[in-house]
Amino acid sequence: MSKILPTIASPADLKGLSDEQLSHLAEEMREELVRVLSIRPAHFASNLGVVELCLALHLTFDFKHDRLIWDTGHQIYPHKLITGRYPQFSSIRTRGGLMGYPNPQESDYDLFMTGHAGCSVSCALGLKVGDDLLGESARHSVAVIGDGALPSGIVFEAMNNAGGLNKKLLVILNDNEMSICPRVGALARCLDQARLTTFYRDSKKNLHNFLTKIPMIGDMAYHALDQARDGLKAFLTGGMLFEELGFRYIGPIDGHDLPTLRRWLEDLKKQDGPILLHVLTRKGNGVPEACKDPVTFHTPPVFEKVGPQRTILALKKGGSKAYTDAVSSAIHTAMIENPRVTVITAAMCQGNKLEKIRSEFPERFFDTGICESHAVAFAAGLAKTGIRPIVDIYSTFLQRSFDQLFQEVALQNLPVTFTLDRAGLTGPDGPTHHGVFDTAYMRMFPNFVVMAPGDELDVAPMLHFALTHPGPTSMRYPKATLEKLDRGLAPIELGQAEVIEWGDDVILVAYGTLLSSCIKAAEQLRQDGLNVGVINARFVKPLDRTTLLKAVEEAGLVVTVEEGTLEGGFGSALLEAANSAGLNTRNLVRLGLPDRFIEHGERSELLTSLGLDVEGICTTVRHALEPAGCPEKSQRVQR
Amino acid sequence: MSKILPTIASPADLKGLSDEQLSHLAEEMREELVRVLSIRPAHFASNLGVVELCLALHLTFDFKHDRLIWDTGHQIYPHKLITGRYPQFSSIRTRGGLMGYPNPQESDYDLFMTGHAGCSVSCALGLKVGDDLLGESARHSVAVIGDGALPSGIVFEAMNNAGGLNKKLLVILNDNEMSICPRVGALARCLDQARLTTFYRDSKKNLHNFLTKIPMIGDMAYHALDQARDGLKAFLTGGMLFEELGFRYIGPIDGHDLPTLRRWLEDLKKQDGPILLHVLTRKGNGVPEACKDPVTFHTPPVFEKVGPQRTILALKKGGSKAYTDAVSSAIHTAMIENPRVTVITAAMCQGNKLEKIRSEFPERFFDTGICESHAVAFAAGLAKTGIRPIVDIYSTFLQRSFDQLFQEVALQNLPVTFTLDRAGLTGPDGPTHHGVFDTAYMRMFPNFVVMAPGDELDVAPMLHFALTHPGPTSMRYPKATLEKLDRGLAPIELGQAEVIEWGDDVILVAYGTLLSSCIKAAEQLRQDGLNVGVINARFVKPLDRTTLLKAVEEAGLVVTVEEGTLEGGFGSALLEAANSAGLNTRNLVRLGLPDRFIEHGERSELLTSLGLDVEGICTTVRHALEPAGCPEKSQRVQR
Repeated sequence: MSKILPTIASPADLKGLSDEQLSHLAEEMREELVRVLSIRPAHFASNLGVVELCLALHLTFDFKHDRLIWDTGHQIYPHKLITGRYPQFSSIRTRGGLMGYPNPQESDYDLFMTGHAGCSVSCALGLKVGDDLLGESARHSVAVIGDGALPSGIVFEAMNNAGGLNKKLLVILNDNEMSICPRVGALARCLDQARLTTFYRDSKKNLHNFLTKIPMIGDMAYHALDQARDGLKAFLTGGMLFEELGFRYIGPIDGHDLPTLRRWLEDLKKQDGPILLHVLTRKGNGVPEACKDPVTFHTPPVFEKVGPQRTILALKKGGSKAYTDAVSSAIHTAMIENPRVTVITAAMCQGNKLEKIRSEFPERFFDTGICESHAVAFAAGLAKTGIRPIVDIYSTFLQRSFDQLFQEVALQNLPVTFTLDRAGLTGPDGPTHHGVFDTAYMRMFPNFVVMAPGDELDVAPMLHFALTHPGPTSMRYPKATLEKLDRGLAPIELGQAEVIEWGDDVILVAYGTLLSSCIKAAEQLRQDGLNVGVINARFVKPLDRTTLLKAVEEAGLVVTVEEGTLEGGFGSALLEAANSAGLNTRNLVRLGLPDRFIEHGERSELLTSLGLDVEGICTTVRHALEPAGCPEKSQRVQR
Repeated sequence: MSKILPTIASPADLKGLSDEQLSHLAEEMREELVRVLSIRPAHFASNLGVVELCLALHLTFDFKHDRLIWDTGHQIYPHKLITGRYPQFSSIRTRGGLMGYPNPQESDYDLFMTGHAGCSVSCALGLKVGDDLLGESARHSVAVIGDGALPSGIVFEAMNNAGGLNKKLLVILNDNEMSICPRVGALARCLDQARLTTFYRDSKKNLHNFLTKIPMIGDMAYHALDQARDGLKAFLTGGMLFEELGFRYIGPIDGHDLPTLRRWLEDLKKQDGPILLHVLTRKGNGVPEACKDPVTFHTPPVFEKVGPQRTILALKKGGSKAYTDAVSSAIHTAMIENPRVTVITAAMCQGNKLEKIRSEFPERFFDTGICESHAVAFAAGLAKTGIRPIVDIYSTFLQRSFDQLFQEVALQNLPVTFTLDRAGLTGPDGPTHHGVFDTAYMRMFPNFVVMAPGDELDVAPMLHFALTHPGPTSMRYPKATLEKLDRGLAPIELGQAEVIEWGDDVILVAYGTLLSSCIKAAEQLRQDGLNVGVINARFVKPLDRTTLLKAVEEAGLVVTVEEGTLEGGFGSALLEAANSAGLNTRNLVRLGLPDRFIEHGERSELLTSLGLDVEGICTTVRHALEPAGCPEKSQRVQR
């Protein structure tokens, strides 16, 4: 049989295919996933798991008009393959290529760029309500959400609202028994139970008979049972939670049985009101290694060797150590030294490299699942007792806890420590995952101490400082290879910057790990005959006013360098401080991320394109020092 | 009988009291609530509803060691009355007096300052886990949460975690059938059903017999029922949702029957694992008018006349119109003019004065309950269809949606409009309710247009502008009396400030409704012989660079005035723009809220204390213009 996948220019091309052809197509889609993963690291196991579900959805609905949202979105690859993007699929996650998440700019089949978990039900409900208001009631609205994302509070909020409005809405629970790590919490048990009790779907009639025959224990019980009759099946199969929220619960059904999926979807398409369809899938389905180890194969390294029948024989060996390793190791040491130290993750045990801590300190390690808001408020409770909790979290995901940072941590002035991983440009994941805003939003909270290590040498002492400080603290670091700078290391002291070298002409002030680029830039600039200094700021709050304002007063040019937004970031903090002190700030130039969403691509590519690499820093300095520099492009220095 | 309440210096003094004395005490507590509400507006009906529950809790537990968190916290008054604060109770909600929310600085019996809803379960779980880790397992942990706060996503996240950890934790659901407005959503129905089916608690044995006698429909069903036996009671009574989350569900029980409450609490105190006790209370209990109209009596105006037996004969008549009225009226007009305009509230229908809109446009009005995260993502879904949603919300509560502002709105560039009420110092509610951070956090998101009306005249045109702009927009306004400034009104145009009057010596740039204070200050300063101008900035994003940078270049002194944080706020935006343009910024002085949590008190008192009233603005200008002004206290102007 000749290849089918290349012939699928849009979902319309699926309609004429036989069951056998569709089965071949599913194989081809998996082949393509394996092929691309041999070229570059990307999301893998989750995509293998939804091939049939994706086909069934596009065969049943017409998502030119109907509405489909893939929650969290890293399982979007099969959807991309059959919505006209197969020819570009090799470019996925490269700069200028396809995004690894849904992207409305790529295709009308992608409605929302999703990357943070749990918002699909809210958005799908909004789409349904909007379509109804606009007289487009025939449009179906479908959200596909994983069991990993399900415990996110917003899902519960959305289901409660959907159940109250009683809108026609199909939520598909893609249950693969995994978050990135194994799922946790009470809901996990509840779904496990549902897996065990699959008898219902084949015994509707039996159940009906059963219900009409049970003996009653009085009028009240009869009344209750009568009202609840529709719900009893869910009670028996474990979906009662959803029924209580006003959803009809259907399932669980086999998510790799395409004809069954299609039959159910066709049936449910005709029914009104909110419905939850519980679909069981296998993360990694079709690739034995990925099924066996779905954690590694969530986003595995490049496949070096693939055998027959998609047997993955070798993964590329891991490269150099990253900041995540240094922080995880510092946390581990802190836990050995101080029994009060605990660590909390919101389902990022693997991403934050906490597996060793999880196994060595099971009593002091907490995985809340993808529940960042709770994770932070829970940490505040721990801190109140005298425990020293560390919330180890990605910068972008901590945005889910903004209000808990405010109320539970900053306002109560509790000693919770935040280690903000992926702070800066995360690379191929793109704008939902870049950690852009944390410096700007954390420094606005009173009581917080907000820090960034300049290199590996800063990491452990900074964490140690954080864990002995009596109030809330945070430290941010990027998804980047560790660097250890050759310098006499000054101890971490509250609100003190580290002067690597003073400079009369130019001082580069790095907040965070772009410090190494600043040091290299300083070396280059010295070859121009300039006297160039470098400061490792370490703290944005409290800011080292003494050192940094002296730099603004004395140096010909001060350039702040940060891997975060310029709108209210570190540079602005220094600008504010200089302004409050009555200083002239014309010699202060701020480098950082501009006011737009940054695309996906390799971090180094992105930094270069934004002028945040060594060359970019040098260029900024040279332009700023040109006497006739254009004020639009650079900063004139006239004092 | 002589008064008992004055003799209660701490909960220990409750222990010797007879049932009759306790009943008297409850009466006295209600009398005291009525007395204080005759002096000043405060939270009322919710406090009347928890008098017995509060007594029962303090009689059963010892919260010197045990842990108690009152969620949302405005029902804390009875707790304050019996934890040593009766003598100061008249001072509640006044500057320097007792706070209207729990306050750890007032009493060790207040563990967390709560004002935003839903975090109690997370914090209580954290307290329990921390106490256990520290060898203090004997400490009980109790969270009291209203049915209004229950649908908040974080509650679900916390219960899922608690159920997973299986910790001893008592969550008391204080079910009064109300948020501030009547509760909404599927959960509301589910709790209503529970109220109807109260038979279980008196028929444990019957149920046991029933369960062991039902005929089976096969092994699977038997197995399912056997496993689920503990849950069946909940299924019958409506608490299945909680059982699914790993909680034992008990109730509903009568929350005004003190002996019953005590019996249940004593019993549950001995039991392990997470328990949810469903307690039925009446909001306003003991005051007939408050029971009849719990919405008005949530925070009623001062009682002008109180009759015998706590009959409230007259409320103080409403005063002048507020910004909330102007915005609500502008929304109403917009909904008449454009059928695509919809409005979304997160349980603040009353606070945002949307009742008229709710009744006139029921199809286009959405109350999500206290679910701000969902509200914003839902709005994004609506906007994607072509609907023009307005999220009408308090500034401080929008913090719950920070991540949805980022991902669902800004990143997708969807035309959702945010009307941010209570932006600025809200007065007697204090730091949990002040709207301090919104300007700083909203302006950091790409694509957003961020605005503030200068006065009443700006409100309707600004909303009209927002609703025709193709991307996300917001406008902030304070909890303050409307002011209408005498001026030739310039139309609202994207990124354009309104120059009220130019000034060579001084230009005051107001972002928001402190504009009127700026105009008055300008008048005073002109009497000093200064040429003083005033600008109504209107936009912080995009900033009117042309006008505002010209001011910085030309005027002797520019003072920005805003009712928001100075850390990254409007003043910083102008500072950044001036810095990027290569301007000297020594003549730029920023006035706003300092980097600390602002206490409760009347808004005018607070503004005065922070130098944000007319006098304060004049003083800042005069200091800044002093040639030998101390740079620490003021801003030297040397160009």
